Amino acid sequence: VKKIIKPTILRGTRDFLPQQMACRNQVMDIIKSTFEQFGYASIETPILSPADTILGKYGEEGDQLAYSFTDRGGRRIALPYDLTVPFARYMAANYRELPIPFKRYQIQRVWRAERPQKGRLREFYQCDVDIIGSDSLLCEAEIAKIIVTVFDRLKISNVKIKINSRRLLNDILSFFGVLEDKVLPAIRLIDKLEKIGEDSVIDELNKIGVKNAREIIETLKPGNNNIITLNKLNKFNVDDINNFLGLSKQLSVPDENILIDPTLARGLDYYTGLVFEVIAPGSDLGAICAGGRYDNLCSLFSDQDFSGIGVAFGFERIMMLIEKDKLFDNSASNSKVLVTIFDNDQVYNALSVYNNLINVGIPAEIYMGTDKLAKQLKFADKKGIPFVVIQGPEEIEREEIIIRRMDTGLQKVLSKDQLVSYMRGYYEAK
Amino acid sequence: VKKIIKPTILRGTRDFLPQQMACRNQVMDIIKSTFEQFGYASIETPILSPADTILGKYGEEGDQLAYSFTDRGGRRIALPYDLTVPFARYMAANYRELPIPFKRYQIQRVWRAERPQKGRLREFYQCDVDIIGSDSLLCEAEIAKIIVTVFDRLKISNVKIKINSRRLLNDILSFFGVLEDKVLPAIRLIDKLEKIGEDSVIDELNKIGVKNAREIIETLKPGNNNIITLNKLNKFNVDDINNFLGLSKQLSVPDENILIDPTLARGLDYYTGLVFEVIAPGSDLGAICAGGRYDNLCSLFSDQDFSGIGVAFGFERIMMLIEKDKLFDNSASNSKVLVTIFDNDQVYNALSVYNNLINVGIPAEIYMGTDKLAKQLKFADKKGIPFVVIQGPEEIEREEIIIRRMDTGLQKVLSKDQLVSYMRGYYEAK
Repeated sequence: VKKIIKPTILRGTRDFLPQQMACRNQVMDIIKSTFEQFGYASIETPILSPADTILGKYGEEGDQLAYSFTDRGGRRIALPYDLTVPFARYMAANYRELPIPFKRYQIQRVWRAERPQKGRLREFYQCDVDIIGSDSLLCEAEIAKIIVTVFDRLKISNVKIKINSRRLLNDILSFFGVLEDKVLPAIRLIDKLEKIGEDSVIDELNKIGVKNAREIIETLKPGNNNIITLNKLNKFNVDDINNFLGLSKQLSVPDENILIDPTLARGLDYYTGLVFEVIAPGSDLGAICAGGRYDNLCSLFSDQDFSGIGVAFGFERIMMLIEKDKLFDNSASNSKVLVTIFDNDQVYNALSVYNNLINVGIPAEIYMGTDKLAKQLKFADKKGIPFVVIQGPEEIEREEIIIRRMDTGLQKVLSKDQLVSYMRGYYEAK
Repeated sequence: VKKIIKPTILRGTRDFLPQQMACRNQVMDIIKSTFEQFGYASIETPILSPADTILGKYGEEGDQLAYSFTDRGGRRIALPYDLTVPFARYMAANYRELPIPFKRYQIQRVWRAERPQKGRLREFYQCDVDIIGSDSLLCEAEIAKIIVTVFDRLKISNVKIKINSRRLLNDILSFFGVLEDKVLPAIRLIDKLEKIGEDSVIDELNKIGVKNAREIIETLKPGNNNIITLNKLNKFNVDDINNFLGLSKQLSVPDENILIDPTLARGLDYYTGLVFEVIAPGSDLGAICAGGRYDNLCSLFSDQDFSGIGVAFGFERIMMLIEKDKLFDNSASNSKVLVTIFDNDQVYNALSVYNNLINVGIPAEIYMGTDKLAKQLKFADKKGIPFVVIQGPEEIEREEIIIRRMDTGLQKVLSKDQLVSYMRGYYEAK
């Protein structure tokens, strides 16, 4: 008896079917081409990595987060947890050969050691875009422009870019007498506002010795619009937020896409300047893009320090939005026409019709066999191919072909020579 | 003292710099778009895989070849060794949802456990293209057409597609009295002809009990051209080779790209029909593409059997050829123009010039800071950006800009409004 291996995959990893890939590839191409239009260069870093170069930043905690193991050669290996730490290592190793400020994008899989569950994958894609080696707020403005351009091209409209400033938060906390060693713990608690609610955050703040917790939270709450929020904060340092707004306006980033939110604490013990978090209104997916300004990205790996800013687009969450709203075509084939084969005697004729199409660059297929015509038409249908060419002995004699539109079933007789220009007309009109 | 982690990567893995990526992405795009033009659908399979789904085919040997380990959850994991076995598992798991015959391509990284050395990487890309679920020789002809189309578009000319037939080889061996149980061992020895030479192969054949070894080798040697080879073999079964040649001719695959080589034994204990191996004349890289017809791809994973044919393009070897012959552009940026910033007072003006370019889709950059102009020009030079925009206070007053060609250093004054159409003219002419 033959032993059959179960064709399983690990939980939290995925097989992608052609329709899914067609949609994913379109989205990825839009993201890539936008990054490239703004002058960002593509880089790649290894997947198999020495564990310390991946876990470094996360220290003790790292082993719980990153997918790590000892290989058969006894090496401690980890797979990238995100694209930020591999990029920091890459900069430390390669900065001498790079144009500084360096603008890079990177689209790769990353791995999490977490137990897989709904919306939590073990293996998934991230799309990062960063400028490193410049501390100008121009960078922040450009990143905002890229965010609105990407989501506009992805047909995800009205995204809100929440922003906050580390400097502003420090200023507010220090005004209310929070001591320096309590600033980071306080920020981490403020980060939990949405999750555990105002009262619990205030309790927790009190517990770590922060007085005036309620006043702090009241001060941090954004107003109904950015102008109200800025007015409310006018005694604090909002210079970088104001400068950022001015620069973004020059890049025609719409005001209504930006939302100043002083409670946004996202990773602020890691980031050192402005932070961003993008949400799609009406969706409960959480952030679909996030990041900020960091000053010491490479310090783990080098004495050389670079200030930079970057965001990661959450590719899988973006795909969930797009698939839910069916924003992109997902036909399983790129082909515009299937050349059928009438019977064994007509193979050469069919090949010659097919060859004429392919040689001028029209995406086409020939049916790989001599099954019944009905089966060949069903194949075209399953792949979403819009046209089919049929050529029986009579058509061959008259040097003609029948072209059938799969959506309407309408058929038309063309001379063999007309087919290319007919398909080209259709193809170029799209 | 701060502890610095060395920014190292594992031997046999690589960081890719922007220039390398620019070139790799161009090559990958050509390969992908050709596959898509012929109606092949993109799929992806997981990287982290249950070890038995990767090692299955290789059995005992597998653990030596594939990169495998036990993860922290005690699971036996392996990383894909090639894209063929993951595809077999994918077919077994998903065939009910796929159009059959199924045409797929897959471009992903694979891993080898071998000790890394020159030309032997631990982590690299493969590009596979397969048709599965049809036993028609049309498939073989189309694969040959795809091979010549891809290499033509990659500017790698005069490739030779060596072909052989499992049926022919069986026929010849049986004619010379090789018993059935010696056929596979004999084929494996014939495979070593180039490596160990004729005399050693004959010795080895004798040792395993194959008589007539010298006559077999003489019979297998190809003639000076395909017609001579076919004449020499006219008493053996060359039907599938002849049919293949006829079908390929209909697809205008040039005769001179095909070389019948009856000694080609490549993987013939795995393949069941025609086999292919592509070499670039004048290169010592060996096969840059290879594959063949298989009948039992999925039998490891399913009772369902499919006949299929496919080839893998050796992406890394192809890149070695292309980089050696400098066949593609490798500038580190896609940007056509850098907008410089004269000084701090001119930031908004520069942003507005930049915004006009970006909003109409011209790949452009703005310099992220107010360094000296010389430094900004050097940056454009390092990134290979062909044009630079300069705008001092005088130009701003006159609503003009200076456009500088980086290759010649020639400068020209344009009105601010003319810039977009000037750049568009350049950009669209390319």
